[in-house]
Amino acid sequence: MSLKFKLLQQNNKARLGKLETAHGAIDTPAFMPVGTVATVKTQTPEMVKETGAQILLGNTYHLMLAGRANLIEECGGLHKFMNWDRAILTDSGGFQVMSLSDLNKVTEEGVEFKSHLDGGAKHFVTPEKSIQIQHQLDSNITMCLDECIRLPASKEETTRAMQLSMRWAKRSKDAFIDRDGYGIFGITQGGLDKELRLESASKLTEIGFDGYAIGGLAVGEPQHEMFETLDYTCPALPEDKPRYLMGVGTPLDILGAVERGVDMFDCVMPTRSGRTAKAFTSQGEMNLRNAQYKADQSPLDSECQCMTCRNYSRAYLAHLIRSNEILGAMLLTHHNLYFYQTLMKGIRQSIAEENFQEFKDSFIQKYTKK
Amino acid sequence: MSLKFKLLQQNNKARLGKLETAHGAIDTPAFMPVGTVATVKTQTPEMVKETGAQILLGNTYHLMLAGRANLIEECGGLHKFMNWDRAILTDSGGFQVMSLSDLNKVTEEGVEFKSHLDGGAKHFVTPEKSIQIQHQLDSNITMCLDECIRLPASKEETTRAMQLSMRWAKRSKDAFIDRDGYGIFGITQGGLDKELRLESASKLTEIGFDGYAIGGLAVGEPQHEMFETLDYTCPALPEDKPRYLMGVGTPLDILGAVERGVDMFDCVMPTRSGRTAKAFTSQGEMNLRNAQYKADQSPLDSECQCMTCRNYSRAYLAHLIRSNEILGAMLLTHHNLYFYQTLMKGIRQSIAEENFQEFKDSFIQKYTKK
Repeated sequence: MSLKFKLLQQNNKARLGKLETAHGAIDTPAFMPVGTVATVKTQTPEMVKETGAQILLGNTYHLMLAGRANLIEECGGLHKFMNWDRAILTDSGGFQVMSLSDLNKVTEEGVEFKSHLDGGAKHFVTPEKSIQIQHQLDSNITMCLDECIRLPASKEETTRAMQLSMRWAKRSKDAFIDRDGYGIFGITQGGLDKELRLESASKLTEIGFDGYAIGGLAVGEPQHEMFETLDYTCPALPEDKPRYLMGVGTPLDILGAVERGVDMFDCVMPTRSGRTAKAFTSQGEMNLRNAQYKADQSPLDSECQCMTCRNYSRAYLAHLIRSNEILGAMLLTHHNLYFYQTLMKGIRQSIAEENFQEFKDSFIQKYTKK
Repeated sequence: MSLKFKLLQQNNKARLGKLETAHGAIDTPAFMPVGTVATVKTQTPEMVKETGAQILLGNTYHLMLAGRANLIEECGGLHKFMNWDRAILTDSGGFQVMSLSDLNKVTEEGVEFKSHLDGGAKHFVTPEKSIQIQHQLDSNITMCLDECIRLPASKEETTRAMQLSMRWAKRSKDAFIDRDGYGIFGITQGGLDKELRLESASKLTEIGFDGYAIGGLAVGEPQHEMFETLDYTCPALPEDKPRYLMGVGTPLDILGAVERGVDMFDCVMPTRSGRTAKAFTSQGEMNLRNAQYKADQSPLDSECQCMTCRNYSRAYLAHLIRSNEILGAMLLTHHNLYFYQTLMKGIRQSIAEENFQEFKDSFIQKYTKK
C-alpha cells in the first residue's frame, strides 16, 4: 500500500490531514466532485480546478461499459483521457450495478447484470474484475467491490451482505496491484446496526487498507441515524488512515460528519443541482426559477468569490435558466462546486485554528435562517 | 454617426480594415459569433474571448420578447448583463419575426406578429421600435429594420419588399440616437436582381450609414448566385465604410465574399455544428459520431492551437458526444469558433502581405481534398 496519509491536527473528533497521491496531495476534510463518465458535467477540468478541487470521483460502472475501460486504458488512463492531472478516486461499480442495472443477481463469486448503456449486454463483475478495471483506469484510489442493499433491511439480510462484502474486500485487496501513489480503500457495511458495523470495521482493519469508507449510508435514512452510525463507526477505524463517507451529502451532512471524524466526501448534489436551477449559498439554498430573482441584480452569493458570482447577476442566471441555455447549468454548477470547496476550506482552516465548532455553528446559523 | 472605420489595405478587392467602437476595435474581415439570447451557446464569455472574437451578434427578436429588453436595460445593457466587454452588433429582429414567429403581417407601418416565446402575445414592431430596443440593449452596431422575403420571389414582390425596406431604413436612421462609438448599418435588399440591388445600395448611400449590410442572401440560393450578387453589390457601396454579409457562412463562402470586398460576417454554423458533433478543421469538416474516431487519439485538428485541440483527443470528444455530455458541445463549439477566428486572422494577414489569393487557394485545397 502506497498512499501516505498524515493526520496534522485534531479538534475534538474533527481531523485535519493530508493524503499524498501520484497525482498530488489532497487536503482533508476533502470533497470530491463526481465525474461520472470521465467529465464533471458542464465543466471543463480547468473550471473544476478553479473551484479548488484536488480529487475527482469517477464511476466505474459507467466507465467499464461499452468497451470504455479498454479505450481509456489505450488512451493512457483516465487522467490523460479527460485532461485531469490531479487525483482520481473510482468507486467499485457495485452501487450502480445494484441500483441502475436492469437485472442483477448477486452470488458468492460476484454480480451478474445487464445494462442499457451497452444495449442490454450481460456482464459479470467480481471483486477481481472491478479492481482490474480500476487499475486500467489508472485510478489513484481504488474502492473494494461491496454489496449495497437497500434500507430498511432485515438484520439477517444486512448481516449476509456485510459478510459477503468482507470476503469481497479480502479478494479486492489481494487483486490490487501496489504502486507508489496509488492505494485501495475498504468499505464498511452493516446498515444501521452497531454490532455489524463494528464487526465490519474490525474485519477490514485486519485485512489492512490505505483508507476506510463508510458505505450504505445516505440512502434515505434520517440524518440523525447516519450521524449515530458515524458516532460508533469512526472510532472503530484506524486513526492513521483517511475515512471516507460515500455519497454524502448536504453541507449540513458534511459538517456533522466532519465533527464525527470523517475526512472525505463525494456527492452529485452540487453538480446535479447546478443543472436543475438550484444554488447553494452562504444564506441557504435557492431556486433560480423563483420569480423573485427575475430582476435581481445582485450576485448569487455576495460572500462568494467564484467566477459566476464575480461576473453575473441572479437576473442573468435566471434568464439563462428560463431560456434553457447550457451556460446557465455551467455557471450554476461552477458556483455550487466552488461553494462546496469553500466550505471544505473553511472547515480545514477552523480545525487548524481549533475552532471547528464555532465555524460549524456560525455556518449553520446563516445557512438555515430564512 | 460615430463609428470610425479605417481601410488599411486592399489586395485586389479583398480589404483589411479596422472598425472602432465604444467597446474596442474590430479587425476586419471579421467573423461575429452569434449570441442569440445573451449567450454564445455552451461558452462562457472568457471562452469566446480565447477564440479571438472581438464582436458578437445578438438577436433582437429573442432579446425583446418576454420583457427581456427592459430587464437588460435595467441591468445596464447587454454587455454588462452577459459579461461581454467587447463590441456587440444586434440585428433588427426582422429576419426572425418573419421566419420564426407564428403569424406575421407586414404593413407600411411595421410588422405584427405573435411569438411562442412569450406565450403567443401579439407584438407590433416598427423601424422606430426596433431601433429603440437596440438602443435599450446598448448595441454598438444597430441594424435597420428590413423586410426579408423568401427566395425565389417574383420581381414584383422583391421590388415591393426592397422599396419598403428603404423607407424603413430612412425611418430607422431617423430614430437612431447618435453616441460616440455607436453606429447604425443600412441593409441592401433586392434578392438576386442586379437592378434592384443597385437601387437599394444607392438609396442607402443617400441616407448615409456607418456601414452597409447585404441582406436576403444565404437563404438557400446556390453559392455562385450569392457571389454574383456580391460582384455587383459591393462596388456600389461606399468604399470607406464596412460591408457586412448577413448570415454567412461556410469557410468557403467567407473566402469568396472577402475576395469580393466583404468585411464582416456572422453565422450560427460554428456554434450549431458544435452541438451536433460537427467540427470544422483545416482538413475539412468531420462528424465526431463516425465510428472511425472512437479510438482515435489524435487531436481534432493537428494544426489548431485551441484549448480543445491542445488537451483532448478525438476519442475523448467522440466519447463525450456518444454519452450526451454537455462538455462535448462545449469543447467542439469552442474549437469551431476558434477555427473561424483563425481563418479570419489568416485572411487578414494574407491581405496585409498581399497574398490573399494564395492563402485562399491553399486553404481550399486542403479543406476540400478528402
